[in-house]
Order: sequence, then C-alpha cells, then structure tokens
Amino acid sequence: MYEERIKRSGLQSRITSAADAATHLRDGMIVASSGFTKAGDSKAVLKAFAAIAQDSPRKITLITGASLGHGTDGMLASAHALHKRSPFQVDPILRNSINNGEVLFNDQHLGESAELIHENILQPDIAIIEALMIEEDGSIVPTTSVGNTVAFATAAKKIIVEINISVPLTLHGVHDIFSAGIWPNRQIIPITNAGTRIGRTSIPIDPEKIIAIVITETTDSPAAINERDDKTRAIAGHLLQFFEHEVKKGRLTHQLRPLQSGIGKVANAVLEGFTEGSFHHLTMYSEVLQDSTFNLIDAGKMDFASASSITVSQDCYQRLMRNLEKYKPNIVLRPQDISNAAEVIRRLGVISINTAIEFDIYGNVNSTHIAGTRMMNGIGGSNDFARNAYLSIFVTQASSKAGAISHVVPMASHIDNSEHDVDIVVTDFGLADLRGLAPRERANVIISNCADPAYKEELKDYFLAACKKGGHTPHLLQEALSWHQRMEQQGSMKKENILQDI
Amino acid sequence: MYEERIKRSGLQSRITSAADAATHLRDGMIVASSGFTKAGDSKAVLKAFAAIAQDSPRKITLITGASLGHGTDGMLASAHALHKRSPFQVDPILRNSINNGEVLFNDQHLGESAELIHENILQPDIAIIEALMIEEDGSIVPTTSVGNTVAFATAAKKIIVEINISVPLTLHGVHDIFSAGIWPNRQIIPITNAGTRIGRTSIPIDPEKIIAIVITETTDSPAAINERDDKTRAIAGHLLQFFEHEVKKGRLTHQLRPLQSGIGKVANAVLEGFTEGSFHHLTMYSEVLQDSTFNLIDAGKMDFASASSITVSQDCYQRLMRNLEKYKPNIVLRPQDISNAAEVIRRLGVISINTAIEFDIYGNVNSTHIAGTRMMNGIGGSNDFARNAYLSIFVTQASSKAGAISHVVPMASHIDNSEHDVDIVVTDFGLADLRGLAPRERANVIISNCADPAYKEELKDYFLAACKKGGHTPHLLQEALSWHQRMEQQGSMKKENILQDI
Ligand SMILES: CC(C)(COP(=O)(O)OP(=O)(O)OC[C@H]1O[C@@H](n2cnc3c(N)ncnc32)[C@H](O)[C@@H]1OP(=O)(O)O)[C@@H](O)C(=O)NCCC(=O)NCCS
Ligand SMILES: CC(C)(COP(=O)(O)OP(=O)(O)OC[C@H]1O[C@@H](n2cnc3c(N)ncnc32)[C@H](O)[C@@H]1OP(=O)(O)O)[C@@H](O)C(=O)NCCC(=O)NCCS
Repeated sequence: MYEERIKRSGLQSRITSAADAATHLRDGMIVASSGFTKAGDSKAVLKAFAAIAQDSPRKITLITGASLGHGTDGMLASAHALHKRSPFQVDPILRNSINNGEVLFNDQHLGESAELIHENILQPDIAIIEALMIEEDGSIVPTTSVGNTVAFATAAKKIIVEINISVPLTLHGVHDIFSAGIWPNRQIIPITNAGTRIGRTSIPIDPEKIIAIVITETTDSPAAINERDDKTRAIAGHLLQFFEHEVKKGRLTHQLRPLQSGIGKVANAVLEGFTEGSFHHLTMYSEVLQDSTFNLIDAGKMDFASASSITVSQDCYQRLMRNLEKYKPNIVLRPQDISNAAEVIRRLGVISINTAIEFDIYGNVNSTHIAGTRMMNGIGGSNDFARNAYLSIFVTQASSKAGAISHVVPMASHIDNSEHDVDIVVTDFGLADLRGLAPRERANVIISNCADPAYKEELKDYFLAACKKGGHTPHLLQEALSWHQRMEQQGSMKKENILQDI
Repeated sequence: MYEERIKRSGLQSRITSAADAATHLRDGMIVASSGFTKAGDSKAVLKAFAAIAQDSPRKITLITGASLGHGTDGMLASAHALHKRSPFQVDPILRNSINNGEVLFNDQHLGESAELIHENILQPDIAIIEALMIEEDGSIVPTTSVGNTVAFATAAKKIIVEINISVPLTLHGVHDIFSAGIWPNRQIIPITNAGTRIGRTSIPIDPEKIIAIVITETTDSPAAINERDDKTRAIAGHLLQFFEHEVKKGRLTHQLRPLQSGIGKVANAVLEGFTEGSFHHLTMYSEVLQDSTFNLIDAGKMDFASASSITVSQDCYQRLMRNLEKYKPNIVLRPQDISNAAEVIRRLGVISINTAIEFDIYGNVNSTHIAGTRMMNGIGGSNDFARNAYLSIFVTQASSKAGAISHVVPMASHIDNSEHDVDIVVTDFGLADLRGLAPRERANVIISNCADPAYKEELKDYFLAACKKGGHTPHLLQEALSWHQRMEQQGSMKKENILQDI
C-alpha cells in the first residue's frame, strides 16, 4: 500500500497509528514539528500526544516552523503538555497559557529560529514531518510548507513522518530545498531574483532515523477570509497612492520590487488592490502565499511568488490543488531560513508590509505585546523583512474597539521593530514617510497623518510638552506609558474616561 | 607638485585653499564627507566652512561614514552651521545641539546609511573626500577609512578632495573597494571569510566632478587610550571564561569565529584578553581596527582583520605607518556597507561584542538614549552586527557614578537592540546566556548574574510583583520607567534617596 507515497523500500513496515507513534514522545523531550502558518503541520501525532498527556501528564518542548492549525496548540496547552514553545503561535488557548506563565515561549525571528538547532543549543529528540511522499533515496517531499523542516530533519535523532494522502502528488516539484550549511562553512545563498531555484525538490535525511510513518488525510486549516472593510480599503488606498507617487518620482517602476506581506486583512486588502491598479509583472518574496497571490497570478498581474508556505481559504485551496500544473511555474516554496534570509531580502530590495499592534510617534513598532506585557502571537518574520527591506512598511488601524484603543501612542509599550527599521507607517487616516527624518520630524508627520483625530490633540500636547523638556527623542517618562495604564485600568485609552470617573 | 599624489593629468590646477574650497558649500546644501570613527575624515574644508558660517550664517545637512575627529562636529555645531546630521556622531557640543533640538539627527544603522543615497531620497550636492592619492584614471585612493565614500563619490554632483600628505603612500593596497550595485540589480557580496578580497584598491569617480583639491597634513585624531580597570577586567574575564566553556561544549574552537568589537574600554579589554588566553588564529570582521587588533597580530594570535577604518592611539598609529608592509597582508579596509553587511556577517557567523547604555531584565538593549530621551552617540553598527551575528553580546558596567546608575533596569528606556537580537549580556558581576530562554527565564538569570547587588533586591521585587500581574513579559507599567524618573529627579536611581527626601 501507498507505494507511490513511500518509494523507499523497507519503510512500509513502519506504518503505524498516530496513537502508537505518539508514544515515542516522552516527558521532557524536545520535539520539532513541521508546520508554518497552519500549513503542512502535524495533523495526527501531536494531537494524539495531547490526548495521551490529558490522561497521563507529560510535557514537551515544541519547536515548529511557525503556527500550527486545527487547534493543535490549544489541545496541547489544554492538556498541559507543553513546557516550552517556539518560535511562533497564534492559538488563543496557548496564548493564555503563555501569558499566565504556564508555558514558556521563546519568541524568535522566524528566519533565525533554526539557529539554536544549528548551533547545537537545542537538539530535537524527535522530528514530526508532514510529507507528500518519501523518495527512493529516503528523502522527504514536504507538503504545503517547508518551514524549518530541513533543520529539524538534519538535527533530530528520530523522525516520525505523517504522509498526507489528501495532498495531490502533483505538488511534487514546487519545493526548492537548499541549506547554506553551518558555520564556519556557510555558503552564499545564490538567489538573485524571486524565482531563482537553487536546490532540490526533497529533503535529504537518513532513512534509518524514521521510526514511524502515519497516514493522514486531513487538509490544512483554511485561512480566514478577511473581507475588505472601509478601514482596510483606506489603508490600501494610501499605500497604492504612495507607490504611484514613488513611480512618478522615478524611484520605483510599475513592476515595484518583490513584495512581502504578512497575513491579515490589511495585507490582503493591499495585495487585492494591485488587481485593479496599474502595477504589473509583480513578484513576491515572502513567507506565505495567500489567496491574493493566486488572484494576482490569475489576473496576469503577478509573474512569480516565492514563500515558505501556502495558507489560503478553502476555495482557493481547491482551485490551487486542481490546477497545480498551471501554477507550478509561478511559485516556489523554500525553507524559512531562505524565504526570510537577510541576505536575499536585502539583495532583492523587498517591499515589506506588516501589521503593527501599535506604533509610537517616533516610529517604533510593537508587533507582539498588548500593553507591553501580554503576548499576542510573536514577532514572526516581521523583522526579518523590516530590517532588511528596501521599504519597510507597517500598517494598523488608527484606533479600534469603538475608539477605545489608539494604535498610535506616545511610547510603544514594547518594541520589536525599532525606529531604525521602519520606513513607512500607515493607518486608515494616512501615511507617514519617515525616511531620512529625525525623531521630532517623524512625530510631526505621524501625528498629523496617521493618528485618529480623537487622539490627535493629546498626542500633540504630549509631544510639545516633551519637546519643552528636550532631548533628541523627547519623552515625559511619567506619562509615556500612561495611555496603556488607562487602558488596563478602565478599558479605554481615552482621557475623558478618567475625567468622568473623578 | 604632488605628482605622486595626483597622477591624473589636468587636476593639479584644481589645487586650492581650504577656505576657498569651503565657499562651494552653500546654505541648504546636502554635504557628504568621508570619515569613520574619526579616521580618514575631512581635516580642513569642513572646519573652514565652520569658520565662514561663524561670521555669515549658513547651514548644511552633513552626512558622513560615522564620527569625525578634531572637534569638527563641535565647531560646526558651535557655528550653528548644521541643519541635519547623520548617521552617527560622538561630539559633546553637537550632542548638546541635537538634544536641545537645534540640530536634527538621523540616527542610522551604519551598514545601511548609504541607502537613502542609493535610493535617491537624499542626493548630496557635494562630497568631501580625504584621499591618499588620485590615480591616473581619476579614481580616488582613500586613507584610513572607506566608510560611505563609494556611495558619496558616486552620487554627489561635485567632489572636493583633501589629499592628506601625512599618510604614507605605502597604505595603497589596503583597501578593497566593492559595490553591490543598486536595486533591482544588486549583486552577491562574495566574501566567504574575513580575508576575501573582492574589489579594487581605489574608488572609481568621474574626475570632471572634482571641483577643488586641498592639500592637508594633519593626522587623524588619535583614539583615547583606555587602561583596563577592575570592572573592564572583570567583564573581559567573564567573557573569556564563557568562550572557553563554549569550546569545551564543542560549539566553538580556540579559533572562535570572526570577531567584531565596538570601540571602548570594555571591548578593548576583551580583545587584549586574547593576547594571554589559549585562543589563536583569530580573525576580525568588524567596523574598526583598534590598538588591540595590531597587538594581537604582533602576538601571533590574529591572522586577519577586516574593517572599514583604522582608529588607534598615537603610538600605535606610528608603529602601523612605519611597518605598513608588514601589516598589509593581514588587514583590509572595506566600504561600511560591506564591513557591516547583514549578508556577510550572517555568512561568517561573527561573534559581536558591543557596549550597552543599559539593558533590562528581559534582555532589551538601549544603545543610544540616556533616560529614553537624550542622544548619546547613535546606534552605530551595533545592530548591523547584533542582528546578524552568530553570537550577539552586549557588555556594560552593572552600575556607575558611585552606584547612582544601575545599567540593569526593569524596562529599558529606549530600545535599539531588542530581546530578539541579544544572546549574551555581561557586566562586571557576571554573564547571562539568554539563548533559547523565555522572558521569565531571562529575568531570573539576568538579575542573579548581572545586576549590582545594591539593585538586585529591588529588581527581584519588581519582577515578582510583575509576574503576579501576569503576561508573557511581566511589567508594572506605572513603575517600569520609575528608575529613570528617579535619576532625572534626584541624580540617582537608588530608592533610598526618595525615602531620605520624604
Ligand atoms: C500585529 C498582529 C497581531 C495584528 O494582527 P491582526 O489580525 O491584524 O490584529 P487585530 O487588529 O485583529 O488585533 C488582534 C487583537 O489584538 C487586539 N489589540 C491590538 N492592539 C491592541 C492594543 N494596543 N491594546 C489592546 N488590544 C489590542 C485587537 O483589539 C484584537 O483583539 P480582538 O481579537 O479581541 O478583537 C499580527 O499581524 C501579528 O501577529 N504580527 C506579528 C507577526 C508578523 O508581523 N508576521 C508577519 C510576517 S508573517
Ligand atoms: C553605549 C556607549 C555610549 C558606551 O560607551 P562608553 O564609552 O563605554 O560609555 P560610558 O560607560 O563611559 O558612558 C558614557 C557616558 O554616558 C553615561 N551614562 C551611561 N549610561 C547612563 C545611564 N543609564 N544614565 C545616565 N547616564 C548614563 C555615563 O555615565 C558616561 O557619562 P560621563 O561621560 O559623564 O561619565 C557606546 O558604546 C555607544 O555609543 N554605543 C552605540 C554605538 C555602538 O555600539 N557602536 C558599536 C559599533 S561601532
């Protein structure tokens, strides 16, 4: 059985159930699993482990590419089966366990998250890898993501493979597997445009390490469909106008430069905006291929898209899987240390668009912590791109929760992307081009262009009072975080609420 | 005259005085000048311009490689001759003008500071370049630094050359001039070890752009000699012990990996420490060659050192210039977008050691702002290296000013190098290895290993109280910056001072 999925002879006998495979995961182990933005993740073994741990307590350290789907992180957290988790997650239950201190979370740059493994600081005991198939030489063809799987497969002592028979074999060939090697013999990553292929189509492993093979047929968790609303439309509009302006100035052409875009409704709205605009021959050098990627390819607007995973809606998934031969010349999936490599992002001059939780009047961006303390998801790849992009853009709504939260604040309560790495900030009210500006100039343009009018006066007052005190980056330390304190105390950043209370 | 310094025929007639050349600098111009860590800077024209501006007010935007020597920045600031300055400075007078808001300062990553120029956001009207000589083809051989001069020479409409005849012609050949080109046609930077040469020995320019040549014979401002004291010795000791430990663990060899070290007494003490230890065949891939570099070469401990400038004491300068032929096979000077290139730093696996103003209990580093507001020098190359290094190390004294300042604080008042980019922090009390740790784990090890005992209990209390409140990165927002507020109000972070006052 499964001859076309398991070509290596002798491995068929290792087929077993998820429950059985999960018994290899012992208390205290470091487990590495495939999975990146809910794509190509473990569908069976991690859940089976959660079920075991529910009855008989045990904890693992779990390292993945990025987020998992299907509530797997939540099940593990509910079963108290996680000691530590890295490098990223998006699960509400796990988030809660992280914030109450039960689960330790090592929030890492996605492009560098394999390094603790390469550096031999963390050695995975077991890797769980979702595969399309195993080749004759034992090498593994991944499914809808590559993530950190190359590093995991190389470093882990034992490997459990989940063969997902729901993914069509026509996906074979979409991957470009390359490893720059380890220090001190790291190689050049010879990618010179989004479409350069530099590697092979499967991940070489020692087949003797495969201790179990589990057959699954669950498809990836679909991406949420984010309909464009007035705010996301407005943000996208400001950005498209800015790109047109840059074309007029001669700094960009209508081809722009390779695009990276984080997941989310704003990023999606911006990319969808290109379907209508005058931009063409676009390319992506990003982490994730989304619905908008395939819409742009269909519209003849996008020539090529490179990423580490495919995370799309159910409809788009069907369309893609049915038409793989059509899309394959236009897409490639790479390991996340290649999709997010500083070297390549800088060389290609990527235009990077990510979402901020908040940014401050000087352009420092908080991507991770609500009120400086509570983890949302993690930094993800945002700084891999922002730090190295030609244009580093951050977007957010100016305010939310009926105006109770201003996403433009006097001082960011946590900083993931510092003033030095942020070129452009955009809200539904407008765009601020910070390139070449000193902090006092930045504050002026951010407050006037980006803040919600309901918060503008107070931001201005803060800035002026701080300027009176002086300093290159004027701040009033006793007030700098007061908006977040108000939010904590009364559920709103609005000053009036205090006055009403008094 | 100066035939061996000005080989291009026809250029001799452009020799003029500094005062005369300085008249080309007009009010409102963008002026780019060579100079990196006080080396290879303009010795005459910028000062002559300051003198003119003193009498007849005019202001320029001044962009350099990094810091200038000889009080040039101070003279320009005193003459109110600066509108804006970037990307780095270390001058006390200029610092004051920046902090009182008179001079705008764009604090930039040194490795990326040429990008606004490449991107055509800033176009220098005039470049001032200190040169060893001008070749027959008109190309310019720089002196003791390369800095941003390649970008400046390419982009500026006009060029003023300062030929410094005090620098021996034997320096010729030490430079490796390479440009990766501009987007969308950026090239691979094919450096695979610290010593790889990839370019030519002079900077190609259009000789028609040379509007004036000024002859100077002032040597670079010497580096301050920082004698090792007990604290720097202690920090260096912790680090050397850590390196030995990593060798024992098999993660490093006694050759280590290419070293980068910021300027300053601690960095110097660490490098000097290698003279005695069991480390050998060391290399540097850094920004600046310092006294310790040449001492290590002399001691047979260092094989090769790559940087963008040479900034050494007067004694070391004499020794170097007298023995250039001996040292030349062991050193190279590169443009700062190559010495600080993310691509190369990651590929080589650099071990980076920089000094922090302060770091917090979660490992966020402030490199630039005193009390979150007042600029010290700038981020410099610290994050070019920290973001991409194999090991990113930050050092600082645990406390200073007779204990009035703790450099380990609850929350950093400004963040330049975020938790994601910091592997190891060290003070005179000890070292914290943060790799793979979650914030709560980091706080424990930083507080116990690095804090001054005088501040330890209060840090612990803060952390415990914050943990009770919860969050992935526990903080009490109303207290997080209170240490800096105490410092502002009473000149000390010590709590007792408040109690005494009450
Ligand atoms: C920043 C990020 C969380 C925004 O995602 P998003 O889906 O657009 O976020 P939303 O605006 O819906 O906000 C998420 C939640 O946080 C809340 N929130 C955001 N900012 C807040 C603030 N300052 N105070 C309190 N709550 C806040 C929102 O209200 C929302 O809560 P809800 O779900 O109860 O409505 C997300 O982009 C992210 O995780 N980024 C970091 C990783 C990254 O950038 N990856 C890109 C490369 S993959
Ligand atoms: C961080 C940096 C300023 C430290 O340099 P240093 O010479 O070791 O600094 P010192 O410890 O002597 O401190 C400099 C001054 O700031 C003061 N200072 C430092 N931290 C302070 C704090 N938290 N509160 C108040 N003052 C502080 C010191 O007391 C000292 O003042 P003094 O000159 O009046 O004595 C310097 O390394 C730097 O500019 N780094 C950023 C750039 C960089 O890292 N480059 C590396 C690649 S080139």
